[in-house]
Amino acid sequence: MLINLGGGLPDPKTFPWEEVGRIVDALLRDRADQALQYADVEGLEEVRREISRFIYRRGVSINPDQILITGGAKEAIFLISELFSQNTVASEEPTFQGFIGTMSFRGLRAYPIPWDERGPMTEVLERKLKALKMWADPIKYFYVVPVHNPTGRVMSMERRKHLMELATDFDFQVIEDDIYGFFTYDSPPELSLKSMDKEGRVFYISSFSKIISPGLRIGFIAYEGREIEKLASIKGEINHQVSTLDQLIVGEMLGRGIVDSIIENSRLLYKKKRNITVDSIEEYFPSTTGCTYPEGGFFALCRGEGLNSSSLAVEAMRRGVRILPGEKFFFSAESGKNSFRLSFSYPTEEELVEGIKVLGSLLKEVK
Amino acid sequence: MLINLGGGLPDPKTFPWEEVGRIVDALLRDRADQALQYADVEGLEEVRREISRFIYRRGVSINPDQILITGGAKEAIFLISELFSQNTVASEEPTFQGFIGTMSFRGLRAYPIPWDERGPMTEVLERKLKALKMWADPIKYFYVVPVHNPTGRVMSMERRKHLMELATDFDFQVIEDDIYGFFTYDSPPELSLKSMDKEGRVFYISSFSKIISPGLRIGFIAYEGREIEKLASIKGEINHQVSTLDQLIVGEMLGRGIVDSIIENSRLLYKKKRNITVDSIEEYFPSTTGCTYPEGGFFALCRGEGLNSSSLAVEAMRRGVRILPGEKFFFSAESGKNSFRLSFSYPTEEELVEGIKVLGSLLKEVK
Repeated sequence: MLINLGGGLPDPKTFPWEEVGRIVDALLRDRADQALQYADVEGLEEVRREISRFIYRRGVSINPDQILITGGAKEAIFLISELFSQNTVASEEPTFQGFIGTMSFRGLRAYPIPWDERGPMTEVLERKLKALKMWADPIKYFYVVPVHNPTGRVMSMERRKHLMELATDFDFQVIEDDIYGFFTYDSPPELSLKSMDKEGRVFYISSFSKIISPGLRIGFIAYEGREIEKLASIKGEINHQVSTLDQLIVGEMLGRGIVDSIIENSRLLYKKKRNITVDSIEEYFPSTTGCTYPEGGFFALCRGEGLNSSSLAVEAMRRGVRILPGEKFFFSAESGKNSFRLSFSYPTEEELVEGIKVLGSLLKEVK
Repeated sequence: MLINLGGGLPDPKTFPWEEVGRIVDALLRDRADQALQYADVEGLEEVRREISRFIYRRGVSINPDQILITGGAKEAIFLISELFSQNTVASEEPTFQGFIGTMSFRGLRAYPIPWDERGPMTEVLERKLKALKMWADPIKYFYVVPVHNPTGRVMSMERRKHLMELATDFDFQVIEDDIYGFFTYDSPPELSLKSMDKEGRVFYISSFSKIISPGLRIGFIAYEGREIEKLASIKGEINHQVSTLDQLIVGEMLGRGIVDSIIENSRLLYKKKRNITVDSIEEYFPSTTGCTYPEGGFFALCRGEGLNSSSLAVEAMRRGVRILPGEKFFFSAESGKNSFRLSFSYPTEEELVEGIKVLGSLLKEVK
C-alpha cells in the first residue's frame, strides 16, 4: 500500500458526489440538449455569472464577461504564458511546479524572487525592478501563489500591499494563483490581491479542483483588460471549450449555495490533517530536518543540510511513501535539492502518521 | 428564430441522455473517489482500453497505451501541430476550419492540395512531393478528413491507396481526422487510412463529439510511434488531463455496448436530413449555384460564380439563416470567397427546408 504524500490531491471525502449526482440527474432530465452540446469558447454565460458571484467572497468584483473558464488552473497559466516574452517575467521561488513546467516548456526564464515565512520577499523584487530598469526589458508579469505551494505559508498583508504598490510604480501585471485561497487554518483567509487591485493589474486565477472536484477540470481567469478576449481566442485554437456538462455541474453547485458548507467542512478536515502533520514531524523527524509550518494550503516544505532529495524520494518510494523532491519547485534544480514537499491533503490520518514516521527513520539513517 | 446551417453541431435528438444519466448515477455511487479525482495526463487506462476496442470497427488495431485522450479532436490537432515546423506540412484544401486556424495561430503555412469529388488529388500531391524534393525541406505531414468537411464527399479507395503509397515512397506521416468516419449514407463506411497503415505512419484522430456528445469533449489520438509520449507530455504542460468524469462516461458507454445502436440511429437520422438537403437545394437554389452531393458527414459546400460569400452570410443572417462563408475552409481567403458551407446536422427537417428556401431566394436576388 502506497502512502501518497506526493501530489496535491484533495481528500475524496470532500467530494460532493451526492449533490453532483442530483445535479446531473436534473441537468439531463431538464436540459440535456444544452448540457451535452457545444458551448462558446469562454464558457457558459450562466456559469460565468455564478463564478463572478462566487469570487466576491474573495473580495473580487468583476463582470461575468471578464471571466474565461479554463481546463483547471494549469490551463489558465498556460494561456496567460502566451502573453509572455523573454526576460519579462518574475516569479516567487519556490513555487507551483506547474508554473515552472510551463516556463520551461516555453523556453522562458523567470527572475526568481525568494520566499521567506511571510511571502515572496518584495524588497528583493523591488531591488531587481530598479536594477533592471537600467539595463534590460522591464518586468511585465509577476506570478505568485499567496496561500503557498509548496510551503503552506500565507503571504502577509504587508507584503501584499507592497507587491501591489510595486506593480503600480513599476507598471507590471500580477498573476495571482488563488487555488488554495479558502484554505487557511489559523485565521480567516486574507482577501485576495485582486481585491486590492484598483488598476486592473491582476490576472486572478483559481479553480474548483480543490473545492468541488479536480476530475471536473473547471478553472478560470478573471481579468478586466482586453487580454481576456485574446486568451479566449487562444483557447479557441487549443481545444475550443471546457466540458459543457462539467461547467453546468459547477454552475449549479454554486447557484444552489452548497459550496460554502463544502469549503468549511474541507477546511476543518484539512486543518486536522495539518495538525497531525505538524505533530508527527515534531515527533518523528530528526532535529536536522526543518519544515515550514503550514498556515494554509495542502503542503509543507522540509529541508535538511546536505540532503539529496531525489535519492530520498526514491528510497522513500521503496518503503511505500511518495514525496516530491524539492527540485520541482525551484527554477534551478540545484536550489531545491536539499528540500522535499510533503502533501497532507490526500492520505488518511493514519497514513499521514505512518508515512511521516517512515520518512523520519529514513531521514535519521541518511544523516 | 435563427435557423442554424452554420456550425457542425450534432442533432440533440442523438444525445443519449438517459444512458448518460444512468452511467453517472452508477459512477458516483460506486466510485466517486475515482470519478471526481485527478487522472493521469494520457487518460484513464480502462477508457483507453475501451477506445482501443472501439476503433477496431474502423480497422484500427492499436494498444491502449498508444492512445492519448484529448479535449476533442481540435486539441488533438493542436497537440500534433507542436511537431510541425515551417514548410513541412501539406493539407487537403478545402478542409476543417479548425486545422486552418491552428496553422494560422502557429504562423505556419501548409501546401494546399485540392479536393475533387473523390478526395484530395493525390496526383497533385505527388507532383508537389517530387518538386519539393529538389528544392526545399521535404513534406513530413499530410492532414486529411476522409469523410470530408466541408464538402461531405468521401475519399475513394483508389485515392486512399495512392496516398498511403506516397507516404511510404516520400516518407511522410498522415494525420487522419476520422471524426465523421461512421457517417456515410449511400454505402458502408470505407475502412480508415489507419487500417491500411503497415508502417505506423498515420496519426489517427477521432472524437466522441459527433457520436455521443460534443459537450463532453472527449477526443483522442492513436499512434504507435514514441511521439505519442511526447504529445502526452505537451498535454501535461497545457492542461494536464481531460475531465475524469467525462472520460468514464464515454468508457462506460463503450463498455456497455450501446454505442453501435446510437451510431446506427444517428446515421439514419442524418441520412434523412441529407436527403432533404439535396432535394431542397434542387428545388430552391438557382441553377447557377452548384453544391457538392454529401455522401457522408454533416455538410455540403456550395459555389456560385461571382458570389461574395461573406456578404451572402451577412444577408442570410439578417433573414434568420446562419451559414459559414467558404473562406474559413481555404488557406487563402481568396480561394473560398465564391463558396459557402451548409450544415444539415443540427436543424430540424422543417428548418432545413425553410432555411434552404430562404437561401435560394437570396441567391436568386444576388444573381
